[in-house]
Formats: sequence, C-alpha cells, structure tokens
Amino acid sequence: MKCRKCSKTAVIRLRQHNTAFCEEHFNEYFEKRVERTINEYSMFNKSEKLLVAVSGGKDSSVAWYVLKKLGYTTSGLFIDLGTENNTEIVKKISEKTGEELLIVNGKQYFGGLTVAEISRIVKRPTCSICGLIRRYIMNKVAYEKNFDAVITGHNLDDEVSFLLGNVLNWQVEYIKRQAPVLESNGRLIKKAKPLVWLTEKEIYVYALINRLTFSTERCPFSKNASSLKYKKVLNELEITQPGVKLRFYKEFQKKDLFGSDNEEKARLSECAICGYPTTGKVCSFCRLEEMVKDAMGKQED
Amino acid sequence: MKCRKCSKTAVIRLRQHNTAFCEEHFNEYFEKRVERTINEYSMFNKSEKLLVAVSGGKDSSVAWYVLKKLGYTTSGLFIDLGTENNTEIVKKISEKTGEELLIVNGKQYFGGLTVAEISRIVKRPTCSICGLIRRYIMNKVAYEKNFDAVITGHNLDDEVSFLLGNVLNWQVEYIKRQAPVLESNGRLIKKAKPLVWLTEKEIYVYALINRLTFSTERCPFSKNASSLKYKKVLNELEITQPGVKLRFYKEFQKKDLFGSDNEEKARLSECAICGYPTTGKVCSFCRLEEMVKDAMGKQED
Ligand SMILES: [Zn+2]
Ligand SMILES: [Zn+2]
Ligand SMILES: [Zn+2]
Ligand SMILES: [Zn+2]
Repeated sequence: MKCRKCSKTAVIRLRQHNTAFCEEHFNEYFEKRVERTINEYSMFNKSEKLLVAVSGGKDSSVAWYVLKKLGYTTSGLFIDLGTENNTEIVKKISEKTGEELLIVNGKQYFGGLTVAEISRIVKRPTCSICGLIRRYIMNKVAYEKNFDAVITGHNLDDEVSFLLGNVLNWQVEYIKRQAPVLESNGRLIKKAKPLVWLTEKEIYVYALINRLTFSTERCPFSKNASSLKYKKVLNELEITQPGVKLRFYKEFQKKDLFGSDNEEKARLSECAICGYPTTGKVCSFCRLEEMVKDAMGKQED
Repeated sequence: MKCRKCSKTAVIRLRQHNTAFCEEHFNEYFEKRVERTINEYSMFNKSEKLLVAVSGGKDSSVAWYVLKKLGYTTSGLFIDLGTENNTEIVKKISEKTGEELLIVNGKQYFGGLTVAEISRIVKRPTCSICGLIRRYIMNKVAYEKNFDAVITGHNLDDEVSFLLGNVLNWQVEYIKRQAPVLESNGRLIKKAKPLVWLTEKEIYVYALINRLTFSTERCPFSKNASSLKYKKVLNELEITQPGVKLRFYKEFQKKDLFGSDNEEKARLSECAICGYPTTGKVCSFCRLEEMVKDAMGKQED
C-alpha cells in the first residue's frame, strides 16, 4: 500500500478515511487533525496556558508533544500516586518538549497511602478512587497556578467505549459530562480532550514514529473490564463498518441530543472544607480524605 | 439446574433474570411476561380486534398463539409475496389457535412479480422492498376490515439491534418510530409489538415446548447483515453483563429521551392515489407501483 500523498510505502492504513500514509504524511495528517479538533469544539487558543495531565502512557505523552509542536503554551503535570513508576518516563517527555514538568505527590493527602490501600479502606474500586484523586489534584493545581485549561489524552476509543456503555444503560447524566470540552466555572478549570478524533492505534503509531518514550502498562485511569469489552465490540463493528466509531462520536456531539450540562453547573457550590466546587456540601475528595483519616485513626486505637 | 418454582429439572436458564424454569413454569413466565408488556405500554385490551401479521417464522407464530391463549381477539394475516412457501405452515398455526387466517396475495399489486424481481427493477434492497409492501398491506387490510391494531412478532433482539444501529449513527428519526406501540392516526392503524421483552431464544424455546409449527428460514423482514452483526455484538455483551439488552431497551423506553413521534404525525396527509397516510404527496407504496408499471411498460415496447 502506498501513501496517498507521495506514493512512498505507507506505514499506516486508515480504513475509516479510506486512505494510507507514509511516516511524514501521517505526522502531517495527525497534527492537522488535532488542530481541527481543537477548532471544531473551540477548545482553546494559543494565548491560553495549558496544563497537560501526563501519566507516562502514550495518549497523554502524545497530547503534550503534539500541542507543543502546534505552538500551544503547555506545561506537564504528573501526579505521583505510587501506582506506577513513571516519573523517569514523564521527565523524558518533558525534555523532548522542552517544557516545564510539575510533579505532585498525590499520596501526601492520604498519609502516604497508595490508591490500592485507599480503595481497600473505603471499599471502592481502585480505578474510581484513582480517577477521583487525579481529577481533583489536576484541577487544584491548574487553579492555583493560573492555567486556563487542563488537557487530557482521551482518545476516540476511550470516548466511544464510554459513550456506548452509557448509552446501553442510558446514563444521561454521564453522557452529558462527556463533552470534548467542559468550560470553566469558578474554581472548576476548563477541561479539554484534543485527541478525541484519533484512535488508540493512530496515537500509538504517532508515538512510535516520533520516538516518544511511554509506558506500555495500562493507563491507571478507569480502564475497567467493561470499557475494554466495549472497545473490543466497537472494533469488531469497525471491521465491517469502517468509520462507525468516528461517526458515533461526531454525530453525537453535533446533534447535542441530551442538552448541555448547565443545570448541573447551576447546582454547584463551594465545598465546606476545601472551597472547590461540589454538588453536595463537602466534595467527594474531602469526603474521601475524611474516611481515610477515620479509618487510620481507628487502626491506631 | 432446577426450576426456580417447582425444583423439577429446568429446560431453560435465564441469566438476565438469574433464574431457570421447567417447561410448565417457563410457559407461565412467558405468558405473564407478554401480558405485562402489553399492560406496561398500554398496547391494547381484550375488547379490541387484533390482526397478527404472520410470516411462518417463530416470532409471529408465537405472538399469535400466546395472544389467543391470553384471551385476546385475534385473526392472522399472511401476505404471500412469493418469497417463501409458508402458506401450509401458517394454516397449521391457524388451526392450532382455532382463529381465522386471512391470506392476501401481495403479488397482485405488482403484476405477479416477486419481491426479488421488484427490487431488481427499482434497484433497492430486497428487504427494504419487502418491508415496505408488507407494512402497507398489513395496514390496508387492518383498516378495511376494522381491526383495532396490527401485531408484529418483533422480539427483544430485533429491537435492541435496531436501536444499537440507530444509536451508533444517531438516527433520531428512526429511533422515535421504534416505540413498542404506535397509536392509530386516521387510516394508519395502531401497531404493537407484544414480544419486545422476550429474546429470540426464549421465543424459540416457547415455540418448541408448545409444538408450534414454524419455518426456520430467515424472516423475510429486514434481517440484514448489519442487524445480524449488532445482534452478535449485543449477545457478546450479554455474556459478561447479563440483562444488558433488556436494560438497554427498557430504560430507553422509560426515559423517553427523544420525544414522541407527534411532529411527524402532524405532517401526515392522504396519498393522492390511494388515500392512505403519507408524508409526501404520493405514498411510497404507490410510488413503487408506478415505478414497476413504468418499467414493465418499457419492457413491452
Ligand atoms: Zn507520503
Ligand atoms: Zn473539598
Ligand atoms: Zn417448574
Ligand atoms: Zn398511496
């Protein structure tokens, strides 16, 4: 198979676009596509300060690298929760981008406990605890350091598997919060996902071509068994219907079927403990901290 | 595995309900479930005259048999389109129910042509032509003979695969028309699907237990390749998440997310040729008849 643009031997075939590219033109395609996604959903512009949440995995590494390459103002944020040992990896990406890397010790909030230990104490799944802690710290750092947006590396496969799971259960509240960009609201900093039009495979190939260092261990974010099952099923459908994943995602965003998230935003108030936005009196992060403190106190008795 | 009710050996295990039944109690469960579906969606009552569209396949045969058994006033309608040779089979079901069977020769409208021939002439897929002709004749017969509702044998697998296909493409107009009951509107007779809470497997087992005669050939209604693919994928998900199909369907109906079909109903007017409802000037059935006549005329020149 030849590159659609230059007729060199292609390194990747994109059935969803009925095309194929060599290394050089795949890079060009990939970067243009990120730029188009940013513009399509009015995510952010070049004067805004972006905080890219990096985990050491390919998605967030590629997000940071490509945003820097496209001329955006970026810093990286690595939250060390003791679940993986990716500090060296994210430092290498920071060197590659030439941009500042912030490293936050997430365990400090929970007396040095790891996510696994916390999840055992509060009897909730690791990935839900991990996600909660990361989202909170990401937002807190972005707010305190005056960033305009938090960037995550969510890709098309993440988004469609999440969407499918929520559609199968008609979890409309979750579906609403799945927008590619969620605007700022007080101390809640804007969140954006510039890789939502690119598949896992495309991101993986981009990372390889551009010699990015990344960890191949599973992303510590909510990659649970059912989301993997949904990915598998959607990839099966993609074989017979190339483009179905992209269409599923884009049409959904375009049609805006479930309305926006504004009702919920109106219900947000300040957490009585930390002051960050919550729908209750005390935010779920502070509640988690309390629960862990209580449990630790009891152990010491 | 033992029957949940009487501890005889079970003939079917229903993982979605975490139960199992013997023949007798499966029949009881099945019939109660149809009754509950009819009541849940206010489909029809025992004073209404029901016209059950039968094809010779298991779904419509079971629909007719179980409605009769539950005490509803039913007649069967078989539309002979020359695609299958099920006349003898539907006669046997008629005998089994003891109810009147109407047989309509569908080919009379198209100069004796079969669906396959018509679809070649108008260059449209067989299943779309077949569905169009059947729906039109079903409604016409029901209207002319004063029936209150047309009953079809659509099962849960039909409904969820259709729903999934439409959700993947966000075909909201199709999704809206997928209700378990569509009320009458002038010459458009009410349509109801009392088997929507039962799977293909359950219906198949019910047909076997009750010694119903049915054809195992594919239903001539729209069972196209992608709907089979969606069924496969949903059955895969059902293995790891028993009940996902039922939940997908029921929650969707309950939440009524896309609003009703009323806008479209308001746009219906009478077909200039036949007088039956259409959104255009001439209904799609009459347009099909015209196209076929034109083509036949040309052939004779
Ligand atoms: Zn090229
Ligand atoms: Zn708080
Ligand atoms: Zn029993
Ligand atoms: Zn007409």
